[in-house]
Amino acid sequence: MENFFDFPLTASKPMITANHQLRLQTRPKGLLAPGDLQLVESPVPELHDGQALAKVKYLSIDPTMRVWMAVDSYLPAVGIGEVMRAGGLAEIVESRHAQFKKGDKIVGLTGLQEYVVIESESKLPFQKVPSIPFVSDTLFLGVLGMTGITAYFGMTEIAKPKKGETLVVSAAAGATGSVAGQIGRIHGCRVVGIAGTDDKCAWLTDELGFDAAINYKHADWKEKLAAATPNGIDIDYENVGGEIMDAVLNRMNLHGRVALCGLISAYTNETPGPVNLGLIIVKRLKVEGFLVLDYASRFTEAAMELGKWKMMGKLKDRQTVVEGLEKAPDAINMLFTGGNTGKLIVKV
Amino acid sequence: MENFFDFPLTASKPMITANHQLRLQTRPKGLLAPGDLQLVESPVPELHDGQALAKVKYLSIDPTMRVWMAVDSYLPAVGIGEVMRAGGLAEIVESRHAQFKKGDKIVGLTGLQEYVVIESESKLPFQKVPSIPFVSDTLFLGVLGMTGITAYFGMTEIAKPKKGETLVVSAAAGATGSVAGQIGRIHGCRVVGIAGTDDKCAWLTDELGFDAAINYKHADWKEKLAAATPNGIDIDYENVGGEIMDAVLNRMNLHGRVALCGLISAYTNETPGPVNLGLIIVKRLKVEGFLVLDYASRFTEAAMELGKWKMMGKLKDRQTVVEGLEKAPDAINMLFTGGNTGKLIVKV
Repeated sequence: MENFFDFPLTASKPMITANHQLRLQTRPKGLLAPGDLQLVESPVPELHDGQALAKVKYLSIDPTMRVWMAVDSYLPAVGIGEVMRAGGLAEIVESRHAQFKKGDKIVGLTGLQEYVVIESESKLPFQKVPSIPFVSDTLFLGVLGMTGITAYFGMTEIAKPKKGETLVVSAAAGATGSVAGQIGRIHGCRVVGIAGTDDKCAWLTDELGFDAAINYKHADWKEKLAAATPNGIDIDYENVGGEIMDAVLNRMNLHGRVALCGLISAYTNETPGPVNLGLIIVKRLKVEGFLVLDYASRFTEAAMELGKWKMMGKLKDRQTVVEGLEKAPDAINMLFTGGNTGKLIVKV
Repeated sequence: MENFFDFPLTASKPMITANHQLRLQTRPKGLLAPGDLQLVESPVPELHDGQALAKVKYLSIDPTMRVWMAVDSYLPAVGIGEVMRAGGLAEIVESRHAQFKKGDKIVGLTGLQEYVVIESESKLPFQKVPSIPFVSDTLFLGVLGMTGITAYFGMTEIAKPKKGETLVVSAAAGATGSVAGQIGRIHGCRVVGIAGTDDKCAWLTDELGFDAAINYKHADWKEKLAAATPNGIDIDYENVGGEIMDAVLNRMNLHGRVALCGLISAYTNETPGPVNLGLIIVKRLKVEGFLVLDYASRFTEAAMELGKWKMMGKLKDRQTVVEGLEKAPDAINMLFTGGNTGKLIVKV
């Protein structure tokens, strides 16, 4: 029956034929320069059995993208000429895929483009976004998405906070840091955030319930950090590296733990200042790196727990939304110049 | 009766009156310069009840001394004008001390001097050296002393080697590294040492049973390290830091462990090259600093285990002995210029 009109079954012409994509043209030095990502129009390929076509609605803009543009890391570097890798939220517009039907919303690595072809099998598969009343879909890019889940596993599996301990979070007003700090509060820690503007600091203390927040752009910030951590620091949830990490390590208590989540100060090839590794010996610290992808089998558990906290009002969030795919390169740079508070998203 | 001649009981004039000491005169920059440690003659003080006087026979020369000369670390910096802190082996020559009698041999922080007054109570107490046939006393400064015990706890408590894993040890021909590598062999690891001369490398492979040894002064040493670690590196027993540590981290397997014992390349304020901390994230490494002093309550356990391996022929050692207290500053510099193989000792 399906073949009644003798249409080929192996591929079907898409309704939408033109896709816009940001492709990696040159590997950036420092911040992204115009042309590092090039906007191109390309045809939407024919769909084969097992594939689906999805329209990208929102893109997740994350510091790790700058690493993907530069070097092989936990994922291979994006190849020159390839669509820039990025997480996103998309809606299925056409499906020959067993798992997804038209209208389904999905999250996964869509790339910086308007339309993405979903393959039948992928190492980093797409997940369906559940429809929950009063819960915005974009939460699945933020608090309930990769950045929130990163904070969840970094805190519960690596930092292992105990009641009464002092936790310091760097890049605390970012998508991951803001969740990590709130998880510390949920576990009964004294939580001190480090951020780059007074507004961000006010958001951390006044809305998110951090015990203190330090603007590292003030000359006396290290004295303020000392004053805010009278019992020293037991846990460093580290997103930044360089001078900021060094100052935190200097305040660590013996046998403290460092959950090494990111080193954003190093991603743009600047020299963020050395970290005195001797402090790791002198203070007998445990420094542990981690990646959220290692916990893929437990993402649902994390999202459920985060969702519960969100509904209980224990987890607050903010989004910075930039409009237009063509603004994605500027958005990436915002991460490194401190332009965003909370989750940074591009609305396509 | 003791007071028959009406001698004062509170203090007694020592038989020996002149002591020679090396006192810290200036904090060194880089290697020690003449005069940083000044040789002075000073009177031996009167002994009070609870004290003993010991003649220092051998001094342990260790990289950590360079740290003690410069900054507060896990112990406070040696004060200007104070006798330079050092471990040593000494013999009691006069005693009003409950624990030690004349002729007893002891190890502890004697300082760089000919005679040391043992106090009745000390945070870092002296320990009696057992008299064991065929066992040289100086082993209690090396394999059975602080450097050997450091390697013991660094390996068993921090690195936790498993059979079949690949262990890389930097400064492998040093007092601690040579023991750490052999403990790795005892646990069934493939052990690769990094050292600074071909002779040291030959000692590691031919006498100590290392599977391979790499001379980092050869231009192609990183390629040789790669060839010697075909299955990557599971454990880095790190004594050096800088470029050497960075090269080892680059070869680490996912979820590898770094037992951070020392950072000798940084102690002389040189710039040993940066360590890419991003590798800790990408490879999900656990980097843990430790200090032997934290295991003080278990030193006897460690010395017994090390002694057993030594008697079974599983633990070999070498000593580099420098003669004369006045040569101690040159000996300290030897640690940083690669002059010693195995334990470096000054015979007073």
